[in-house]
Amino acid sequence: MKKTYKSRAAVAFAPNEPLQLVEVDVEAPKKGEVLIRNTHTGVCHTDAFTLSGSDPEGIFPVILGHEGAGIVVEVGEGVTSVKPGDHVIPLYTAECGECEFCKSGKTNLCVSVRETQGKGLMPDGTTRFSYNGQDIYHYMGCSTFSELSVVAEVSLAKINPDANHEHVCLLGCGVTTGIGAVHNTAKVQEGDTVAVFGLGAIGLAVIQGARQAKASRIIAIDMNPEKFKLAEQFGATDFINPKDYDKPVKEVLFDINKWGIDHTFECIGNVNVMREALESAHRGWGQSIIIGVAGAGQEISTRPFQLVTGRVWKGSAFGGVKGRSELPKMVEQSMNGEIELAPFVTHTMGLNKINEAFELLHQGKAIRTVIHY
Amino acid sequence: MKKTYKSRAAVAFAPNEPLQLVEVDVEAPKKGEVLIRNTHTGVCHTDAFTLSGSDPEGIFPVILGHEGAGIVVEVGEGVTSVKPGDHVIPLYTAECGECEFCKSGKTNLCVSVRETQGKGLMPDGTTRFSYNGQDIYHYMGCSTFSELSVVAEVSLAKINPDANHEHVCLLGCGVTTGIGAVHNTAKVQEGDTVAVFGLGAIGLAVIQGARQAKASRIIAIDMNPEKFKLAEQFGATDFINPKDYDKPVKEVLFDINKWGIDHTFECIGNVNVMREALESAHRGWGQSIIIGVAGAGQEISTRPFQLVTGRVWKGSAFGGVKGRSELPKMVEQSMNGEIELAPFVTHTMGLNKINEAFELLHQGKAIRTVIHY
Repeated sequence: MKKTYKSRAAVAFAPNEPLQLVEVDVEAPKKGEVLIRNTHTGVCHTDAFTLSGSDPEGIFPVILGHEGAGIVVEVGEGVTSVKPGDHVIPLYTAECGECEFCKSGKTNLCVSVRETQGKGLMPDGTTRFSYNGQDIYHYMGCSTFSELSVVAEVSLAKINPDANHEHVCLLGCGVTTGIGAVHNTAKVQEGDTVAVFGLGAIGLAVIQGARQAKASRIIAIDMNPEKFKLAEQFGATDFINPKDYDKPVKEVLFDINKWGIDHTFECIGNVNVMREALESAHRGWGQSIIIGVAGAGQEISTRPFQLVTGRVWKGSAFGGVKGRSELPKMVEQSMNGEIELAPFVTHTMGLNKINEAFELLHQGKAIRTVIHY
Repeated sequence: MKKTYKSRAAVAFAPNEPLQLVEVDVEAPKKGEVLIRNTHTGVCHTDAFTLSGSDPEGIFPVILGHEGAGIVVEVGEGVTSVKPGDHVIPLYTAECGECEFCKSGKTNLCVSVRETQGKGLMPDGTTRFSYNGQDIYHYMGCSTFSELSVVAEVSLAKINPDANHEHVCLLGCGVTTGIGAVHNTAKVQEGDTVAVFGLGAIGLAVIQGARQAKASRIIAIDMNPEKFKLAEQFGATDFINPKDYDKPVKEVLFDINKWGIDHTFECIGNVNVMREALESAHRGWGQSIIIGVAGAGQEISTRPFQLVTGRVWKGSAFGGVKGRSELPKMVEQSMNGEIELAPFVTHTMGLNKINEAFELLHQGKAIRTVIHY
């Protein structure tokens, strides 16, 4: 008989309905898999996006959540890189170290578990979650909205056991994405100028990364001026509320430098803002990095002249960070103060209040709500 | 009284009409300007584009032509880098060495004469050409369709006087643009894969650059299979005629590598092809370089997911080459066989037949027609 565990979980049974707290069955980890006990999880816009039904890859019923931290409970056959008791961050961007992408030295977009992960399944094509005998899908290879979750070994970063999980769980997604995009994707250099469109967790993390890189000017842009205080705390030097101007934001930026800004970051997921960010980039060498996730089917556009005159359009996923080899170091940086995580955690609550966390997100009242089990 | 010269010239008096061969008046060069006698000029698609009336910056009457080679006749006040008798290639992308773009080390897009050049004027805001007392505009700072032309000192590359002008005039635009885009913009490395959309002079030059860079596979794409022979001669290894397939070219490229091609180059000016070239680029690190000039007001688009999964969208102008400091070396390379120019010159004719050269261009029968004075 198959060994199974019982776990508390917040299950999304259908799109656009509140999550339901139930006790699910979790099968023991199979070959190359690891059972972890999540201690904390952030609630991210991507979870809300999938829950809304707008995500073309979204499938239900599913256990969402992808920004967590936990402890290894049991390892499956052949697992050697972690053992029970290890502290870990689950990774939605795996790192197998063996595929052509991992070996390229050019990208963090490992493909080892990509295909099944996109279908809500473990690498063998099945799910470990069920409820009353009905299969429940995994999400982004993590499913951190279940206290117990099974993830692939290649999707686990082993971290310093002294790290504060309530903080470092945020390195599982938003903060790493923002800081990594500055260093790995844009490669911001000392003295460069930076503009950040959207001051959610990712935008604020970009600001923090730009300050680490010693950018000369960090321009924070948001329609909610309440975000400016935290942006300033993280290092922003200039603040633009588009509502304060009767001209496009790019014209406001051209008043700062008539040729544009060295690096612009779109941290919202709005295709019109993506265009404006690109067109605000410096003639000759400016680059614009898309981090936000746009709605299904939406497209970006611009005149090709924008690129021919030297602007570069890029995107970033998980900040270009290789989770298993690089995330442990970022955890250390958070412990010695080089990365500040505490200010992101504006709210904490138990799993039973997770639907409130989504409410706070939609109302723009929380940077991050962290759920504790 | 102002000193003036008489010169044969092919003047575009109005859009979409044949050029007229007339004798124009050319004023002596003013401060920082140089009078040159063109010996040869190529006829490029950009000339045809402006002549068609589709160029939003096009103004008439104008002396077109921007791909020439000649000899200095007279220098204006303060000119020190060239003297009468020097052999030169006029540059539509100037290099002043002093603006923030020239000093950046990041781009060739010098702005020293950009504003007036775009208006068909010399840097002091006036024109040196007239016909029967009527001002005639300059074009791209070159106007090589006049035997005598006045250009800014910063817009002249001094070259080896032993170079064959009938060949090296092509380094004034198309060939430099293609080869430069490979080395400066894409930075193709040994073993990389390359796909070239469009086999005009620029596309063929990209192929030549890719062979210099030791690309492992160079895929040539054109709807006119007659271009494949020359493409092969320059180094192409694979040939795709989109008409031979009942699926998009990108699907054909995915059959070669399921993740895409390392570097793709759009050398046509078709915004739909620009999209296909981007979406054919390798997941994780592929880049697509726009070289072709699209019609006025046309836009490129794609799903942002294409960029977030690692593709980079760039453009290239004059191949990222700094004309005064780098073009003389390319001329030397053409003289020692490292750059092949002769095969590009499919037709030569006198200035009096220049309208035939445009015909050949429109019919796709010429790679380059070179006009000799």
